[in-house]
Amino acid sequence: MSTRTAAPGEAELAALVARIGMPDEAAVRAALERQARLAKPPGALGVLEEVSVQLAGLAGRCPPPMPEPAVVTVFAADHGVHAQGVSPWPQEVTAHMVATFLSGGAGVNVIAQQVGARVLVADVGVATSLPPAARDGLRSVRVRAGTRDLSVEPAMTRAEAAEAMAVGARLADELAAGGAGVLLTGDMGIANTTASSALVAALTGQDAAVVTGRGTGVDRETWEHKVGVVRAGLDRHAAVVDAAAQDPLGVLAALGGLEHAAIAGYVLNAAAHRIPVILDGMIAGAVALVAHALAPHAAHAWLAGHRSVEPGHAAALAHLGLRPLVDLDLRLGEGTGALLALPIVQAAARVLRQMATLDDVGVSR
Amino acid sequence: MSTRTAAPGEAELAALVARIGMPDEAAVRAALERQARLAKPPGALGVLEEVSVQLAGLAGRCPPPMPEPAVVTVFAADHGVHAQGVSPWPQEVTAHMVATFLSGGAGVNVIAQQVGARVLVADVGVATSLPPAARDGLRSVRVRAGTRDLSVEPAMTRAEAAEAMAVGARLADELAAGGAGVLLTGDMGIANTTASSALVAALTGQDAAVVTGRGTGVDRETWEHKVGVVRAGLDRHAAVVDAAAQDPLGVLAALGGLEHAAIAGYVLNAAAHRIPVILDGMIAGAVALVAHALAPHAAHAWLAGHRSVEPGHAAALAHLGLRPLVDLDLRLGEGTGALLALPIVQAAARVLRQMATLDDVGVSR
Repeated sequence: MSTRTAAPGEAELAALVARIGMPDEAAVRAALERQARLAKPPGALGVLEEVSVQLAGLAGRCPPPMPEPAVVTVFAADHGVHAQGVSPWPQEVTAHMVATFLSGGAGVNVIAQQVGARVLVADVGVATSLPPAARDGLRSVRVRAGTRDLSVEPAMTRAEAAEAMAVGARLADELAAGGAGVLLTGDMGIANTTASSALVAALTGQDAAVVTGRGTGVDRETWEHKVGVVRAGLDRHAAVVDAAAQDPLGVLAALGGLEHAAIAGYVLNAAAHRIPVILDGMIAGAVALVAHALAPHAAHAWLAGHRSVEPGHAAALAHLGLRPLVDLDLRLGEGTGALLALPIVQAAARVLRQMATLDDVGVSR
Repeated sequence: MSTRTAAPGEAELAALVARIGMPDEAAVRAALERQARLAKPPGALGVLEEVSVQLAGLAGRCPPPMPEPAVVTVFAADHGVHAQGVSPWPQEVTAHMVATFLSGGAGVNVIAQQVGARVLVADVGVATSLPPAARDGLRSVRVRAGTRDLSVEPAMTRAEAAEAMAVGARLADELAAGGAGVLLTGDMGIANTTASSALVAALTGQDAAVVTGRGTGVDRETWEHKVGVVRAGLDRHAAVVDAAAQDPLGVLAALGGLEHAAIAGYVLNAAAHRIPVILDGMIAGAVALVAHALAPHAAHAWLAGHRSVEPGHAAALAHLGLRPLVDLDLRLGEGTGALLALPIVQAAARVLRQMATLDDVGVSR
């Protein structure tokens, strides 16, 4: 439907999408049957039961393996649109926070420690120099030093977007090979809620004002400006936005960030490996719209960790039909909301694996 | 305002209530100030920040101690109102489930294992005989073998209700002495949603039909019958219900269960010990209304673990102004919803204890 030439990396992307399978119907049936026999009233564990069935279908066996060990990967990148004054924070904060993730003092580190997850930090496009201390333990896979300004030109070339997707996909390969049982998304990038709002607007058809929020905490005036910047980006790339359903990669390149692209590769490849993914907040929600447009089947591997206060996140979740597991007015990103959902997902699997049945208990209705 | 004679145990209850203090204002201020300096946008951790401030105020220091180790106590008892046919399950299921809690195969056991909590099981009023295997590890503190039928007479005497409260309070003493950092409520008792609905109606003024739900899964016809039974109880005890605000113990005795009373003593005494409590679902919500009426200050020690699908639970939480931490359509009881909230509460405390500050990170807005 388009005369464009495929960029380098697009063939690999098509191969990745082709590897994503459907839920295993026999395992789904077995999980439903087992839930009905457990020592509780039918349905009494609510969403936990649904999650357990999803995990069984994804794994292709019932009960499913425990979703552990868990790894949250924080994909960090900068955004050219920061130049438009959409955030109160200087761009250097991205690099500083990368250093903080590596030193263990950020929100994601603290919550990961609480729930027993490992934190991996990947620089896929930080624009400023990293403190020397930040280099230990960092996965340096920078595709370029930040995106271009989406409000005036495409944020990335198609080749750059495909390359960043490949970076995320390769990390998922590596984590799968290392035995990870569940992957969580995390992100860091000053101004990345602006890019996310643009992606959500493009892929859901909602107005910019509906899907743009206060991000890290902008005032009313800056919010109105931010909406205008999102709208400018949508107008500038109107032809790409109009063809969003046919060419999600084009939308991702025009409006997204390098971390969005990397996370898209990560969550698609996790689905190909049949490893469950817990999505974090607004940035992951925007990514999930792109990834779902590329490969609708992949969504059966995904769980919405939480719902952030960003209005665009609610719009993305509603569009995808994903119910958030946690809803606590978070808007930090980094993977914090996904981490809070991890014990819930693990509990769901454990219920199916370990609970006694009504027969064991000697009870019938 | 009443000519009744105080029952045995009421003096002890008054002494317990008198020991419950207010939040420590200096610790609350210190927690708010520390949250504002952490390496994140102000407010970005949403409800986690509020929980951390509450924990600091309760502990009287900032940062607060970690809410660990955690103990969930499952208070089991039977209900005379079961004779009215309000549940599809035979009364013996209470005893069978007590055995299951002790053998480790129930929902509460599996989820407690996931989140690292200890399960304690207390028989405060089971009506039928326990399987021999159920006696190992059980806390046998039975006040009587089930309540009377609330729809035709008071479920308990005031003295029985006060005694059951004392049982729960003594367990909290023992757990506090043993170093518990957080107490969770759990319950088991066939027909206990009926008693809970009656308590919620009496203490919120809502209609029986609004606060009565499907419990473990009754059909429409049984639900209508259940509403009628709740209404009969409210009518039978109209004088007590009218005086609910002045005499919460009278309401508890007339309409409640032995597990409700024991949990009331447990959550009030936890507040007196300044130990946080995570409330489970519908039964704990009804208890919290009673306990709050007895000692409004106690609520600063309580967190609503989750919101169950029982409509009376939402009414109780709204009346108390408690926001549930988890909202996943659970209706199992046993403490399962409270357990799912435990990592969230622990994460809140850990954030205040361990996160770096903006100064540490070298960032300013």
